[in-house]
Amino acid sequence: MTPPFTGHTKRLRRHDILFEPVTIGPKVLKNRFYAVPHCTGFGTEKPFSQAAFRGMKAEGGWAAVCTEYAPVSEDSDSSPWVSARIWDDDDGRNLALMTEEVHRHGALAGLELHHAGAMAHPRESRWPAVGPSAIANDVYPTSTTPREMDEDDIARVERDFVTAAARGRDVGFDIVYVYGAHSFLFSQFLSPVLNQRSDRYGGKLENRARLWRETLELVREAVGADCAVAVRMAVDALGPWGVHREEALEFVASVDHLVDLWDLSIGAVAGSNRVDSGASRFFKEGYQLEWTHGVSKVTRKPVVGVGRFTNPDTMADLVRSRELDLIGAARPSIADPFLPRKIEEGRYEDIRECIGCNFCYSRAEYGGHLNCTQNATAGEEHRRGWHPERFARSLRAEKDVLVVGAGPAGLECAIVLAERGFSRIHLVDESDGIGGHLQWMTRLPGLGEWGRLAGWRKARLDSLRKQIELIQGTRLTRDDVLGYGAEIVICATGSYWSRDGLFGATGHPIPGAAESALVLTPEQVMIEGKRPRGGRVVVYDCDGYVVGAAIAELLAAEGSTVTLVTPHSQVAPVCHETLEGYFVRRRLHEEGVRMVTATVITAVDDGSVTGTDEFGQVTHIEVDGVVLVTQRLPRDGLYRDLTRLPVDERRSGGVESVYRAGDCAAPRMLGDAVFDGHRLAREIDADDPLRPAPYKRERPVVAVAAEAGDLR
Amino acid sequence: MTPPFTGHTKRLRRHDILFEPVTIGPKVLKNRFYAVPHCTGFGTEKPFSQAAFRGMKAEGGWAAVCTEYAPVSEDSDSSPWVSARIWDDDDGRNLALMTEEVHRHGALAGLELHHAGAMAHPRESRWPAVGPSAIANDVYPTSTTPREMDEDDIARVERDFVTAAARGRDVGFDIVYVYGAHSFLFSQFLSPVLNQRSDRYGGKLENRARLWRETLELVREAVGADCAVAVRMAVDALGPWGVHREEALEFVASVDHLVDLWDLSIGAVAGSNRVDSGASRFFKEGYQLEWTHGVSKVTRKPVVGVGRFTNPDTMADLVRSRELDLIGAARPSIADPFLPRKIEEGRYEDIRECIGCNFCYSRAEYGGHLNCTQNATAGEEHRRGWHPERFARSLRAEKDVLVVGAGPAGLECAIVLAERGFSRIHLVDESDGIGGHLQWMTRLPGLGEWGRLAGWRKARLDSLRKQIELIQGTRLTRDDVLGYGAEIVICATGSYWSRDGLFGATGHPIPGAAESALVLTPEQVMIEGKRPRGGRVVVYDCDGYVVGAAIAELLAAEGSTVTLVTPHSQVAPVCHETLEGYFVRRRLHEEGVRMVTATVITAVDDGSVTGTDEFGQVTHIEVDGVVLVTQRLPRDGLYRDLTRLPVDERRSGGVESVYRAGDCAAPRMLGDAVFDGHRLAREIDADDPLRPAPYKRERPVVAVAAEAGDLR
Repeated sequence: MTPPFTGHTKRLRRHDILFEPVTIGPKVLKNRFYAVPHCTGFGTEKPFSQAAFRGMKAEGGWAAVCTEYAPVSEDSDSSPWVSARIWDDDDGRNLALMTEEVHRHGALAGLELHHAGAMAHPRESRWPAVGPSAIANDVYPTSTTPREMDEDDIARVERDFVTAAARGRDVGFDIVYVYGAHSFLFSQFLSPVLNQRSDRYGGKLENRARLWRETLELVREAVGADCAVAVRMAVDALGPWGVHREEALEFVASVDHLVDLWDLSIGAVAGSNRVDSGASRFFKEGYQLEWTHGVSKVTRKPVVGVGRFTNPDTMADLVRSRELDLIGAARPSIADPFLPRKIEEGRYEDIRECIGCNFCYSRAEYGGHLNCTQNATAGEEHRRGWHPERFARSLRAEKDVLVVGAGPAGLECAIVLAERGFSRIHLVDESDGIGGHLQWMTRLPGLGEWGRLAGWRKARLDSLRKQIELIQGTRLTRDDVLGYGAEIVICATGSYWSRDGLFGATGHPIPGAAESALVLTPEQVMIEGKRPRGGRVVVYDCDGYVVGAAIAELLAAEGSTVTLVTPHSQVAPVCHETLEGYFVRRRLHEEGVRMVTATVITAVDDGSVTGTDEFGQVTHIEVDGVVLVTQRLPRDGLYRDLTRLPVDERRSGGVESVYRAGDCAAPRMLGDAVFDGHRLAREIDADDPLRPAPYKRERPVVAVAAEAGDLR
Repeated sequence: MTPPFTGHTKRLRRHDILFEPVTIGPKVLKNRFYAVPHCTGFGTEKPFSQAAFRGMKAEGGWAAVCTEYAPVSEDSDSSPWVSARIWDDDDGRNLALMTEEVHRHGALAGLELHHAGAMAHPRESRWPAVGPSAIANDVYPTSTTPREMDEDDIARVERDFVTAAARGRDVGFDIVYVYGAHSFLFSQFLSPVLNQRSDRYGGKLENRARLWRETLELVREAVGADCAVAVRMAVDALGPWGVHREEALEFVASVDHLVDLWDLSIGAVAGSNRVDSGASRFFKEGYQLEWTHGVSKVTRKPVVGVGRFTNPDTMADLVRSRELDLIGAARPSIADPFLPRKIEEGRYEDIRECIGCNFCYSRAEYGGHLNCTQNATAGEEHRRGWHPERFARSLRAEKDVLVVGAGPAGLECAIVLAERGFSRIHLVDESDGIGGHLQWMTRLPGLGEWGRLAGWRKARLDSLRKQIELIQGTRLTRDDVLGYGAEIVICATGSYWSRDGLFGATGHPIPGAAESALVLTPEQVMIEGKRPRGGRVVVYDCDGYVVGAAIAELLAAEGSTVTLVTPHSQVAPVCHETLEGYFVRRRLHEEGVRMVTATVITAVDDGSVTGTDEFGQVTHIEVDGVVLVTQRLPRDGLYRDLTRLPVDERRSGGVESVYRAGDCAAPRMLGDAVFDGHRLAREIDADDPLRPAPYKRERPVVAVAAEAGDLR
């Protein structure tokens, strides 16, 4: 019998196939792990963050690492969103930093050349958007209509692609994309609906494909000897902004000779068709295979596909069955840039799997800087100098540490302290589990995969058990802490949902709520298992993220008649930023939940709630129960008790320092709570570790007054 | 009788009062024109744009010119929105460029020191927001709760203000604000609702005012000898995020000795209380006086107020009656940075009055770069090198020019060509008026003030009548143009509303719409005066900006039963970006218009329309009429006829060049159409004037590869 392991590593032989090299045009990928293009907020505006972030993936073993979309023309401007614009040589210079960094770690660098066509909203450049026909995009309402491209426009855009490709090649890119997925220019031309042209670029598929094919030919001619030419496309646009599967396959076959690599996705850029980057609540690992299946049969070129792949068995099976040649990843490569290396070395238990929450997307697009819930170092490589796998020994590593609370922040903090050399850490939690509020949140419909956050950290605790002692079912008071023997005390005691409906819309608790027997909190529903006393329930969601809508969904699925009331103009507006918004609404609709927006609840009485809408109209809803999901409050009693004590009393109890981290300082997004625990541990040697250290900001700085001459 | 004019200028004596100097602390304002802080998208990230833009106001005669809000602390981060963060010396360096430029033109420079408190959403810095109490803000849903500030936080934020004030002083600012309007930190402390503290910073007004007062004392102590200390506050917060008028006046009186200048506003930062920067549709010139009235009675310091003041008589009256000491302006100073100088010189007819459309705000906040509808050069001072009052002579100035269409783009283009020395311009319009579609749009409810766009240009045409001949009521065909005798032909023929319901949601016209007798376009309603045949009307608004909602309002006001259907998740989503959104909805509500969102109309039959909502649910609405406001299409027939002609045929007709500008190239926002006409005229000497010249982009550029060493 063949031993199951490969060589001297612990890698299972069945995963060896993932480490075969793959040729793409003039280049060779050293293995089958491929970090596909995705947004970051860095683009060409934060070149050092860009280089450090992408370079980390290269160091982690990915065979290729790509930029985000890189507009080639000024009429493909999507400001204020940041992209890897490659309009001039300075853009090239900035991106050279990335290629250098990626190469240094032995990976190939890919550049996703892009034109948004009618999806552009050029607010910075002020060029009008262009498209195959003058049909306005429905995704970004801007009261504008794109210009139907004439032959001059077509020739210019083709030239722009060639110029940008050459510029990319010259600054070291190994792979250049002629990108057309996500409803952008080439998809628009390909679409039999959006392309209403009567010239040789419209009509039958061959004509609709002409722009893409010509561009491929020109780019290939210009850089094909030096670079692999990749195409990213939706196998099915699931709507008018592209083609359906049949024509997609026909297109693949027809231009296959011009392409070195096919990068597959599905769906369009937003709304109900935005299925790419599907959140784990609605889309499971490998969900794109349903559509991408069979593409490999019509191409002779390597195919890369995505679907939040983190399981090496699944990956190996996909390659073996020739569903995919390369395992593509955006989110899994953010959550764990070292995924390939960990599989290569058989360190399976170390893999930090993406939880599919799309915090990365929301921060890249709506915060200007990518971050990650699972991987607190993502986006912090340059600006804070953090490495996901390397930790400097702390000057205080000899100290005894007590971390109170094994929720997201406490877990992360304890683990990073251990990585930094602390060897006597007690992690104490009052519950019998770990993960804090995740223990109940992961039981909400669809949120099971978020359990990976605690799961990975549980595995780390096991590995670090000589340094971290986990003590469960223990609630510590101030006096317990004082006598504990720890010099450093970190409170990470989390938060709880307001029981009286406090929220900034009125600034007050809801009159009647605190006294009402009708009112339940999320914890009462999820931890205590309480249910409203009758079938008619209002869920009042001011929070706007996952909890309110998920509880509404749960109660409706159990048979209640649920009305979700929110003061916001949309249901679960935060979920809009995580690409979950439409799917949340659809799920609620399917469960029969009535949705009432722009309405503030102003009173809870014995059998009804009173709401006031944005026009001042008052409504009464008769209810048997109300679940208040208004806002969270910090569970900071222990921290306050400890810090209220005079310093010398604390010291006589042996406590040198008291810190807090995560929601018990301020309730926040899960990824920011993890970050805060991580940050505290990274900065524990600072004079005041509670004050985050400054980070490097990338912005133009006027170096000398003489530059001001430029103004005159 | 005293002559009405002052000295050798044409200025009316009654306006002399506006040119009196005013002392503020250690500084003197040379006149009463005060350019208040407002957002631009430049902040400290685009220092050259910032300096050039603010410097232009100084050149135009404003006595003081201020930055936008300048956060002093890392927990007052509002990324991705750009502000004048003053966190470190590099920020100071960047802003020094602005103070130098402002001083060069003899004005004072003001720095609006700011902390957002609980309104912050620190997505870049990842510090948690802080506030007086742990009450979540309802404006930016982020699923977070601010941290209640402890005394350490208070001391730190006060220090941050002092550090920032000193930094501001050191780089040349003459005025430093301790800014608390618009619901931000100091307003939150002042609020009896949001401030629930039981320490000496909460409770009675004196306590709630303590933080602001202490900060004023410290800032004054640090920089008061060198700088004037200003406070910007809402005289009434119109809600929980601040105080009502009575307490506001009490506060003013109590800290008056610490303040050199009061800068007044009203309302909160968003929603129904966002009354500051009110759009002209809903708020008329001087609308804030209702609230600010009487403040001057409780202070001995100069008071600046805003309210879109452009009328010098109103301004002088306000000063004379001591309602205001200084005429504040944000939007009027954008629309015409030379407003003070024009009044000073009695060039009243040259004043380019703000139309109150809030395009400036929408572009600063949602486009990352301020622009203006009236003033095409706003935001373009540095990056395109445009000056609102100076124009270089064109190399082609001897040519004869024909501009077809006296709408926004054509008017602007003709005027700028004249400014550039062209002396034989014919501006031909088929209508008897000027302004293109503005002729009917300005008759929509509330949009009258937009008529200033054509009004100012009409006055310019009068001044430039030796160079521009306006020919009305004349429609030109291709052959007319060929025989016209103009060497340069510019088509600015505008756009029209789709007659068949074309829009990108389906990509198709609406089946049945083109044939239906029920269907009307906006032009049919507004120009032809047509009305639906009965009382039940659907207005289908895909455009999402002003026209759809205004027509719905008009028809409802006339007595129709109106349903506004939109495929977007909100009514008139573009109006959200111009601070009109809430007021548009309220107006529709008041007129009894039913609003149906997230619904695509899929058919128009004999007596009904069929809609499909985002969940696929089909509804039928019985109607007597349908107004389709789906998207515009270019009126580009003439341009196409001319450019389809072989070049030599055109030339034999005497036509050297044919260009197009504005909506006839691509229908767009009004401000972008004006810009396009302006740009074409500015760039008429380029090899290809239709291709916009590159503009200067402010971004960090990696200068030398050695910098990459920073990554390791």
